[in-house]
Amino acid sequence: MEYRLLGRSGLKVSVISLGGWLTYGGHVEKQKTFDCMKAAFDAGVNFFDTAESYAGGQSEVVMGECIRKYGWARNELVISTKINWGGAFASKGHAENSVGLSRKHIVEGLSASLGRLGLDYVDLVYAHRPDRLTPMEETVRAFNHVIDQGKAFYWGTSEWSAEEITDAWRVADRLGLIGPVMEQPQYNLLVRDRVEREFYNLYAKHGLGLTTFSPLKMGILSGKYNDFKIPEGSRLSSSSDAFTKSMRAKFDTDEEMKKQINTTKRLEAVAKELGITLSQLAIAWIIKNPNISSVITGASRPEQVLENVEAVKHADKLTPEIMERVEEIVDNKPQLESRRFA
Amino acid sequence: MEYRLLGRSGLKVSVISLGGWLTYGGHVEKQKTFDCMKAAFDAGVNFFDTAESYAGGQSEVVMGECIRKYGWARNELVISTKINWGGAFASKGHAENSVGLSRKHIVEGLSASLGRLGLDYVDLVYAHRPDRLTPMEETVRAFNHVIDQGKAFYWGTSEWSAEEITDAWRVADRLGLIGPVMEQPQYNLLVRDRVEREFYNLYAKHGLGLTTFSPLKMGILSGKYNDFKIPEGSRLSSSSDAFTKSMRAKFDTDEEMKKQINTTKRLEAVAKELGITLSQLAIAWIIKNPNISSVITGASRPEQVLENVEAVKHADKLTPEIMERVEEIVDNKPQLESRRFA
Amino acid sequence: MEYRLLGRSGLKVSVISLGGWLTYGGHVEKQKTFDCMKAAFDAGVNFFDTAESYAGGQSEVVMGECIRKYGWARNELVISTKINWGGAFASKGHAENSVGLSRKHIVEGLSASLGRLGLDYVDLVYAHRPDRLTPMEETVRAFNHVIDQGKAFYWGTSEWSAEEITDAWRVADRLGLIGPVMEQPQYNLLVRDRVEREFYNLYAKHGLGLTTFSPLKMGILSGKYNDFKIPEGSRLSSSSDAFTKSMRAKFDTDEEMKKQINTTKRLEAVAKELGITLSQLAIAWIIKNPNISSVITGASRPEQVLENVEAVKHADKLTPEIMERVEEIVDNKPQLESRRFA
Amino acid sequence: MEYRLLGRSGLKVSVISLGGWLTYGGHVEKQKTFDCMKAAFDAGVNFFDTAESYAGGQSEVVMGECIRKYGWARNELVISTKINWGGAFASKGHAENSVGLSRKHIVEGLSASLGRLGLDYVDLVYAHRPDRLTPMEETVRAFNHVIDQGKAFYWGTSEWSAEEITDAWRVADRLGLIGPVMEQPQYNLLVRDRVEREFYNLYAKHGLGLTTFSPLKMGILSGKYNDFKIPEGSRLSSSSDAFTKSMRAKFDTDEEMKKQINTTKRLEAVAKELGITLSQLAIAWIIKNPNISSVITGASRPEQVLENVEAVKHADKLTPEIMERVEEIVDNKPQLESRRFA
Repeated sequence: MEYRLLGRSGLKVSVISLGGWLTYGGHVEKQKTFDCMKAAFDAGVNFFDTAESYAGGQSEVVMGECIRKYGWARNELVISTKINWGGAFASKGHAENSVGLSRKHIVEGLSASLGRLGLDYVDLVYAHRPDRLTPMEETVRAFNHVIDQGKAFYWGTSEWSAEEITDAWRVADRLGLIGPVMEQPQYNLLVRDRVEREFYNLYAKHGLGLTTFSPLKMGILSGKYNDFKIPEGSRLSSSSDAFTKSMRAKFDTDEEMKKQINTTKRLEAVAKELGITLSQLAIAWIIKNPNISSVITGASRPEQVLENVEAVKHADKLTPEIMERVEEIVDNKPQLESRRFA
Repeated sequence: MEYRLLGRSGLKVSVISLGGWLTYGGHVEKQKTFDCMKAAFDAGVNFFDTAESYAGGQSEVVMGECIRKYGWARNELVISTKINWGGAFASKGHAENSVGLSRKHIVEGLSASLGRLGLDYVDLVYAHRPDRLTPMEETVRAFNHVIDQGKAFYWGTSEWSAEEITDAWRVADRLGLIGPVMEQPQYNLLVRDRVEREFYNLYAKHGLGLTTFSPLKMGILSGKYNDFKIPEGSRLSSSSDAFTKSMRAKFDTDEEMKKQINTTKRLEAVAKELGITLSQLAIAWIIKNPNISSVITGASRPEQVLENVEAVKHADKLTPEIMERVEEIVDNKPQLESRRFA
Repeated sequence: MEYRLLGRSGLKVSVISLGGWLTYGGHVEKQKTFDCMKAAFDAGVNFFDTAESYAGGQSEVVMGECIRKYGWARNELVISTKINWGGAFASKGHAENSVGLSRKHIVEGLSASLGRLGLDYVDLVYAHRPDRLTPMEETVRAFNHVIDQGKAFYWGTSEWSAEEITDAWRVADRLGLIGPVMEQPQYNLLVRDRVEREFYNLYAKHGLGLTTFSPLKMGILSGKYNDFKIPEGSRLSSSSDAFTKSMRAKFDTDEEMKKQINTTKRLEAVAKELGITLSQLAIAWIIKNPNISSVITGASRPEQVLENVEAVKHADKLTPEIMERVEEIVDNKPQLESRRFA
Repeated sequence: MEYRLLGRSGLKVSVISLGGWLTYGGHVEKQKTFDCMKAAFDAGVNFFDTAESYAGGQSEVVMGECIRKYGWARNELVISTKINWGGAFASKGHAENSVGLSRKHIVEGLSASLGRLGLDYVDLVYAHRPDRLTPMEETVRAFNHVIDQGKAFYWGTSEWSAEEITDAWRVADRLGLIGPVMEQPQYNLLVRDRVEREFYNLYAKHGLGLTTFSPLKMGILSGKYNDFKIPEGSRLSSSSDAFTKSMRAKFDTDEEMKKQINTTKRLEAVAKELGITLSQLAIAWIIKNPNISSVITGASRPEQVLENVEAVKHADKLTPEIMERVEEIVDNKPQLESRRFA
């Protein structure tokens, strides 16, 4: 396993990490969750990601259970959670302070997360999406507060804009507080603009580190939809949550998705040539970007974990020539603004 | 004339202002320039805008001459210039420090501008486009330096992104310096995204004031291209600068421009109904946006000045119902991100 | 016993202290460790030094046991530990965050050290060597955090360069945090450059206090190698750790070591003349340097402790004349750069 | 000519610059000085370096005269001077405040330099060597003062240690002042330690830019001493200043110099192979280091200027293979300390 510093911090995270989104605590049964996490840990993964909102809190519960089951030492693990959407933990009609990034919800939400995880602290706590109703100063102060209380070591953001991250640093710099060290955006061969263009200035300026999600773009880059059909028995064919439903609806109508599947088919040829799977190509391609500290992968079976972890070894196969060919296929390289106008 | 505070400052600017871009010092002869400026001044306009790069410095020269010619008192005027592109003022092969936003060029460039204007100070100095090679701290410090030296009263930006403006405030807040008070973006019925969506947070957060350019979108919104032809004898038909040439080239090929002209024709019907000119409708519509401090207009004849200034009086005619109809015609209302994700 | 302020702090440390490096928890059996520590305590030593990495944590365990065994009051003791190398406390392949000076390891490492010591807090916590991968701000904040949490009273460094200590103060000064109060370098008659030249500015500027290690230069200055042989039955003759092995290897080949032993033999004559042992001469010489707060000595037998402590009484015998003779023998006085170039 | 940003600033300096040390105002006659400076300017050099102490102030006098003679615009030039040794400008016995880096001498010294140069401001002002008698805060404040007064745009240091530069930033950071942007060290194929090892952390941390002097190591790297003799008629054979005398004395006795000449002879073979002169090889080698903003060269004849400037074009000839061979010949690559001890 390769370990990278999390942005401009001293924390080392495995370049492949395992996340609980849409899987653990939900449709993946408990023993399978344990198997996946153990396979990951044994393969050198040290970073496990969850959120208060994943499976209504059950993702944290089952991931915490796994840590205790195998007796992993706390210093061997990097555990993260995310705060914003804790609506599931309040009775209907009284959830108004269980969402957002107020001091109240950051403190209460993180405490509840730690309770579900059975931990004294997480390593990383993320602001799960921006909350534009709460003043930035309150949010920055609250994350510093939980760090001071020893309940987290670092704080970051998820799906914030470059302006919002800069604004958080503005407040932190003015007050001598700790700014956001990491951001968790979507990033994959099909979605690149934010990471490669919008965040361009933030890497050197604030040492922003990225832990990216959706490396396979909801599975499209695994090639499993290459027949333009939802495979029977897949989660997408059966799950009933709103997110999955909206994904399903796109299959018949969405021109963009058709284009993405066509792109995926061309990428498959490259993967085959390199002797690796399409998923491995997709993950290895992300790893080549030095601004990415860790690729958060999802898995419902241990074999998937191993396939994903294997991608690290294959990263060297993505030579400049291969990268060039991939670039031509995806044809979506973000255009950087010129550095000086003259 | 209506006067508005320039963002969160105490300076009052006429809501209609007169700029020298592409006109004064260039193809508009000197006496016509004087006539336009006098018409504006007499109609209550107090704010005149120029830049070191307009007509290779000649815009500043002639506008300064006009001020002295009519003996206008300094306290009756708000004069702005913009620094970034001073390449015209260095011999070939030695212009490398005559562009950009280094301390050297901000100080030297502004001094040279004041020399051409024949003034001791400007009221406003803008960073004419961002310079991403110069550290933000150097630029913020340099604008504060020229303010401390008494050579400008306020500093702002032109065509910067929300992230860049926020970053300027980050530096200013940390060092206890003055941040950018105003921004000068393009804004009109056809180009709205930056002003209405991207800058959305900046008005309340930093008190950003806007002085907008291109209210008629290079003349399109005056209706003069409604026949899909360049009128004979117009500047566009004859001028040979690169900018004009590229505009001209678009007339035959650009689908976007055709669409804009069609939109303009539908707007013309609304203007007719209100008994005002199309230009007045376009300017009055901008004035309705309370985040705009001043609309910088261009004019090569005094009659145009008066037509533009007249728009102020007609702003009341743009009732909520009319605004709704305009919205339907232009069909480009920027989508704000929801204020909270839940 | 003489007590000195620890640099520019209000803490008083005995000028002779006892450290656990290469001895306690390792090859020195437990009862001997207790005897040494008791002899020291009874002789007025109040400062005991250890580290998370000494004997894989066993140094802390046994020293903590001793404190409880004799029921010494916490307020009578100054206890230090050092954080950086906690690799022994993670399973193979998962030690990446158990070394270095990240917030995670400083917090987790110190907590584990306190657990092994059986203490609620240490008086001093050192950064055991620099960690150039972790941003200085993170390290300075983390040491302040553990001080805020009540887990340590002061923080310092060990074997950092003058630039690195200055950089820590830069961060601390900017953020209004506590900077490093003490540094723990090697210092003895044979190794002087860092303490006397490189750190020269730091004593007055930051009030840097020194707690020095290796007063006898790994035993050379005790005279026990004066026959150019490793004495039978000594630790050096039998121990198998990498450090000891490399020391042993030098005896046959290292010209530098031969030179040092020759110097030692000449010093022995001076000691004899003063009626003290060579070790006492070596320790008394260090004590004469007012920038040294405490000399950390090692001992595997109580008699050694008493011999070392005795050196304090003999310091007065090192008159200016004797100091001059010693200077001639060691012939290694660091050359200070002139204070002004003219 | 290639232009580089001066460290983390927005100022562009030509990668080859021309300095007045040991030449202008001294043994090089005035017309020759003008010829050299004109040749440099015409070849694209924009940066000219001098100091209050060069030729007792005459270097500044003659260089200022040249600027006026050719009517070069101020915005086309980057002019630097250095303050510390102004002893020549006070009568004997009253020079105590004409040296050093006190507020008094920085202000008075720079004013006098500007007077000799006939300029309102320099672009760069250097602290010529550290002054360890003056508190760092006074020096940092004084350089900020002259910048605030408009008498310089940037300040830096010359031959300061990494600790001293870090300490200047400590003071600047605490007070919100401007820190040193550039340092002027000796740097060439024979003297590398400070630039490549000691300053290693400063490039990323503070954006330190370097303007290096002595690219040919007092001429040795030009090959002119390859016969182990001082060429007749050279400055070294005749000049009587203390510096030159001490250089001359080394020729007979200094083993180090003999070794350097032998190294130079081996480098000559490489230069020949590349079809460039030895001086060009030496200068091109410096240019390959991206931390160097500008190489300050000396010249007493215009042909030398052109030979030096030409080196820029030849930099590409120093392929990785050639760089490797040069490394083997000079055999003095500084050893970086490991980034983390584990």
